[in-house]
Amino acid sequence: MTALFALNLLDSGVQLSMLCAALGLVFAFILITVVIRASPGNERMRQISAAVQEGAKAYLNRQVITISSIAVVIFVLLLIFKDHGFHSGSATAIGFVIGAFCSLSAGYIGMRIAVIANVRTTQAATHTIAAALRMAFNGGAVTGLLVVGLALLAVSIFYVIAGHIVGHAAAVRSLVGLALGASLISVFARLGGGIYTKAADVGADLVGKIEQGFEEDDPRNPATIADNVGDNVGDCAGMAADVFETYAVSLIGAILVGTLTLASEPAAIVYPFVLGGISVLGAILGVLFVNVAKGRPANMLMGAVGMSALVSAILFWPATHYLFPAGVNVGGVVRSPTQLYFASVIGLVMTAVVVVITNYYTSMHYRPVQKIARASETGHATNIIAGLAVGQHATALPVGFIGIAILLSFHFAGLYGIAIAVMSMLSMAGIIISLDSFGPITDNAGGVAVMSNLPKEVRGVTDQLDAVGNTMKAVTKGYAIASAGLAALVLFGSYVEELRDHVTSRGEVFSFQFSLTEPKVIIGLFIGGLLPFIFTAFSMDAVGKAAGAVVREVRRQLQAKPGILTGQDTPEYGTCVDIVTKAALREMIVPALLPLIFVITVSIIKPLGPVVLGGLLVGTIVTGLFVAIAMTSSGGAWDNAKKFIEEGNLGGKGSFAHAAAITGDTVGDPYKDTAGPAINPMIKVVNIVAILIIPIFF
Amino acid sequence: MTALFALNLLDSGVQLSMLCAALGLVFAFILITVVIRASPGNERMRQISAAVQEGAKAYLNRQVITISSIAVVIFVLLLIFKDHGFHSGSATAIGFVIGAFCSLSAGYIGMRIAVIANVRTTQAATHTIAAALRMAFNGGAVTGLLVVGLALLAVSIFYVIAGHIVGHAAAVRSLVGLALGASLISVFARLGGGIYTKAADVGADLVGKIEQGFEEDDPRNPATIADNVGDNVGDCAGMAADVFETYAVSLIGAILVGTLTLASEPAAIVYPFVLGGISVLGAILGVLFVNVAKGRPANMLMGAVGMSALVSAILFWPATHYLFPAGVNVGGVVRSPTQLYFASVIGLVMTAVVVVITNYYTSMHYRPVQKIARASETGHATNIIAGLAVGQHATALPVGFIGIAILLSFHFAGLYGIAIAVMSMLSMAGIIISLDSFGPITDNAGGVAVMSNLPKEVRGVTDQLDAVGNTMKAVTKGYAIASAGLAALVLFGSYVEELRDHVTSRGEVFSFQFSLTEPKVIIGLFIGGLLPFIFTAFSMDAVGKAAGAVVREVRRQLQAKPGILTGQDTPEYGTCVDIVTKAALREMIVPALLPLIFVITVSIIKPLGPVVLGGLLVGTIVTGLFVAIAMTSSGGAWDNAKKFIEEGNLGGKGSFAHAAAITGDTVGDPYKDTAGPAINPMIKVVNIVAILIIPIFF
Repeated sequence: MTALFALNLLDSGVQLSMLCAALGLVFAFILITVVIRASPGNERMRQISAAVQEGAKAYLNRQVITISSIAVVIFVLLLIFKDHGFHSGSATAIGFVIGAFCSLSAGYIGMRIAVIANVRTTQAATHTIAAALRMAFNGGAVTGLLVVGLALLAVSIFYVIAGHIVGHAAAVRSLVGLALGASLISVFARLGGGIYTKAADVGADLVGKIEQGFEEDDPRNPATIADNVGDNVGDCAGMAADVFETYAVSLIGAILVGTLTLASEPAAIVYPFVLGGISVLGAILGVLFVNVAKGRPANMLMGAVGMSALVSAILFWPATHYLFPAGVNVGGVVRSPTQLYFASVIGLVMTAVVVVITNYYTSMHYRPVQKIARASETGHATNIIAGLAVGQHATALPVGFIGIAILLSFHFAGLYGIAIAVMSMLSMAGIIISLDSFGPITDNAGGVAVMSNLPKEVRGVTDQLDAVGNTMKAVTKGYAIASAGLAALVLFGSYVEELRDHVTSRGEVFSFQFSLTEPKVIIGLFIGGLLPFIFTAFSMDAVGKAAGAVVREVRRQLQAKPGILTGQDTPEYGTCVDIVTKAALREMIVPALLPLIFVITVSIIKPLGPVVLGGLLVGTIVTGLFVAIAMTSSGGAWDNAKKFIEEGNLGGKGSFAHAAAITGDTVGDPYKDTAGPAINPMIKVVNIVAILIIPIFF
Repeated sequence: MTALFALNLLDSGVQLSMLCAALGLVFAFILITVVIRASPGNERMRQISAAVQEGAKAYLNRQVITISSIAVVIFVLLLIFKDHGFHSGSATAIGFVIGAFCSLSAGYIGMRIAVIANVRTTQAATHTIAAALRMAFNGGAVTGLLVVGLALLAVSIFYVIAGHIVGHAAAVRSLVGLALGASLISVFARLGGGIYTKAADVGADLVGKIEQGFEEDDPRNPATIADNVGDNVGDCAGMAADVFETYAVSLIGAILVGTLTLASEPAAIVYPFVLGGISVLGAILGVLFVNVAKGRPANMLMGAVGMSALVSAILFWPATHYLFPAGVNVGGVVRSPTQLYFASVIGLVMTAVVVVITNYYTSMHYRPVQKIARASETGHATNIIAGLAVGQHATALPVGFIGIAILLSFHFAGLYGIAIAVMSMLSMAGIIISLDSFGPITDNAGGVAVMSNLPKEVRGVTDQLDAVGNTMKAVTKGYAIASAGLAALVLFGSYVEELRDHVTSRGEVFSFQFSLTEPKVIIGLFIGGLLPFIFTAFSMDAVGKAAGAVVREVRRQLQAKPGILTGQDTPEYGTCVDIVTKAALREMIVPALLPLIFVITVSIIKPLGPVVLGGLLVGTIVTGLFVAIAMTSSGGAWDNAKKFIEEGNLGGKGSFAHAAAITGDTVGDPYKDTAGPAINPMIKVVNIVAILIIPIFF
């Protein structure tokens, strides 16, 4: 009877979340109709938009081919090793393909919508700023809702079907395959897109702004279309794949922890699905809020986040009490539904906390950014020193709050409590990505305005929105890395539990010690701690190399066709797009494979083994969190320090301080848009691969 | 009988090391005579040298007063808490005073010798490069031998006397007080000197080179004397205090581990003393080698290191076999003398490995520096990106080898093996500091040459030596941080053992778990991991603020006395010296107190406690190692990339690439000379304070 109720609960809970996910998708399609129906502007605007669209599609198609060939190799490896241990049959391999496919699709969709919304935002900006804001936000919201809906549906459908075929326990474990597919593809998408966007941006700036004195988006700059394509393939497609992955992995991590530590409690499996489902409703209400509210752009966007969080916080309460009427036994202690509810609220609070903190460090209205701006008055070097210092300072509060969140959520419900807090934090992804995608859409809208020779006021409107978008982008990066760090910790917990399961299933005693007094753990921490440092070093090198290729091509074109400078000749935008595409795809391979190489090498070398690997996982999370926060914060702060000066402060555009601020902004580009955010999926890939290889090597 | 033999062995071994230390001191005094007897050049040279000397003395005197007042507070605190637990009586407090005094003295001596040697090196450079090399090297060797001799003598005399008064066990523990004194003062000296030297350097460059187009060391620049003072108080005094501290702490750490884990074996206590004593002999032979050999400067210096290491490696063998004829029981397993010997050789090999690796990443003859130089051709931003990436890449090999060293030395003799490897590595400090102090002496010698209007050829000679000195400085920084990381790990091991001792001495069961599966450990790793990030952020801010004060003063002087520019008026060098002195002493306080604040806060907050503190200690070591290596390597590489261009490559001086390279060099200044190296003593202070507070808080 209890078992039947439990099964019903399991089914109905998951079904409920599927329903919410479907609702989110339906709402996204309504928004798509709204966006598409809007006017795409005049002939010239449509031409430019089409060129950007074409470049983005061309890049993503080639990225799909490159990544797919790597995915096929891993799929085959998973099939070969399918009989090793617990990853029942081919389910893991199939999960991998589904995860990879969905992650790629999320990126693809994000990009497609953005290139449709950008020109329509420009057109709306010819009317009012409110109209432009809504157009850009609705475009972003499509991505947000699609990513969340897709992730929730993919995981739940796979879980239900696999559960029917291979049984519940095996289905949960084969979800790790889905997580790997999502994460691995997301590393490639983040890196490939990140290298593309910054190589094009830096390359266009170096030769365009510095050598030729072009303005941003000057149509005479042969790299300008590539630069605009970059916003879409990096900030939209890369970010969408990244957050899809974090969402899916957090959900799967929570299910895994629920299964490993609370095996007898189906509600523990359903709970993360339900949290995800509820927050889709919250996101929809948030999106509606922006479409009806009036006020300053930044306030409206923040209001939407607040609204979503409030709806979730209210609905989590009855859901938790319904699922756990008598609480749940975690590690021998019964936790009340209220305790579990608190764990879920911690995730919502963390979202708010991270948003506020990142905003402080990267918005031009506060001291850190203004300090960088003032340091620019004494030159390039002091601008850089100040920016680097701000990034390092910016790590303190987020890491402190992450520590408090871990302590509290563990206090409420052990490792499961942490997993619930993470899932609850990620459940906000729908509305958060809406804010994030808003940024590149307005950025592109500005580009279209300049290249179509629209009146200066139009660019003024998009510039205002772009400044808001910059802060939103920085804020969501803080959100992405904080949630990624927490999700990775849950995965590390799962690694240890899986290892225990694996060893005891052989009838042996689990004797592995992950104590800091064990030199192997220290060595693991060192090896893992190294990974983010060289991963980001390779990523920055990659941007440098790809940007160099752009610089050479732009110089070649300007020399071959001197008429470009006078506007008589049209630059060959296509060759620049082509060069960045090839360079980005070539350069992403080495850094993207680093996490795989590290984990497998440590597993193969016998004197190292599972304990060193455990240390490695934690080491990567610890330094990864700091490096990622420092890089994304520095980058955001440099960007807005430049904007602060461009608004007429400290000498304004063209001043000595402005030149120094441009240097900082350029250094910040690969920091905040390539290396820093690529750490998010990287630290999860490391942990997921470690879980997957347990039965193969140990 | 055995006990008596053991006691004799203990005494005679320590006496032998005292003898070697005394020999080192005698040899240092001979070198002092040699240096002082050399000609100090003409009237003008002596005047400039006197001005630098006076500024350095004035700064150090005030630094001594500031630091002493903090030391008095801590001394009183140690006396107040003397009855808490094991730190028997006032011995710990007295040890603290001795450690603090010796650390200050080491810095003071290093500075005094350097300001005597600098003008004599200039004078020697008017004859031959070989004479100048020897003068600068002998000046550096005085510091090297004094530091090592002083450390060995201070620890052994204190240990012997305290042993007679409070007994062996209490004496060993009160050595922790000595370690605290040495480390804490060294943090202040490193930071104060580091802020001073780079604030003066950056300030002088910003307003002198960039605004006025002065050359380096132009006597019209009011900050130029302050800049030259900085080399002495930062690179000489700061470095001497730092390495004195690492040496003393490594020795004490090895004694502590020997006592805690091998309590019944007096030879285990004597062994680290003997290793230290033997290497003093090696250092003396190395110094003699430079004074008789002929060849390229870099080769002669490297030859001296090789010679010292070889002598130590040969003499360690009979010493080990004499002390441990039947091996020693470590953790229940008998380790042969050969195994212990191998552990000691690991330290020597690590020295060589770190020297070679750092040289690769920071010398202008290899790819990394040349990559930065080439990146300068596309501007300031690409120079910075390339330099940051090189620094991050440079962490991989040292950390990898540290991992191997830990694994091997632990394999040979457990935690004691690691302690021995560290002590053996530090025993090379005598010769290594000789190389390091060589750098600032030649740097100053060049300054004296320019300011005294000596012929260009003299500056040519000092410039050649300065380039060698730059690489040597970078190399010794790699050595300092690698050995500091290893020494800190030994201290962490001691922390756990002391904690165990403390808990079990109350009759309780030691139940603390430092497992990575424990959230408190993870939180500790996060808090500790944060420390190097914000410590360096505050340090860089401090340099920025102090440099700003210099810029304002220089601008004021040039405005008030326009005759300075034409050479009719003499600048007021003294006010610049005074301003930097005040700024450096004010700005060093906050970052220097951070490690204390972190450890004590975590200890006081009850839900955190000893397990979080354990995680904190390791977290600080892990991220500290990476941050320090990345910062010092980037800084060294930027510096030499500029030098590479100044040698006429890629457009040479005055080119666009050169301007970008100057930006990199300036960013690198606080990286490599303030923030990066100050991490070394910081990670040890954290660990030592943790050991000391166990009986107070837990």
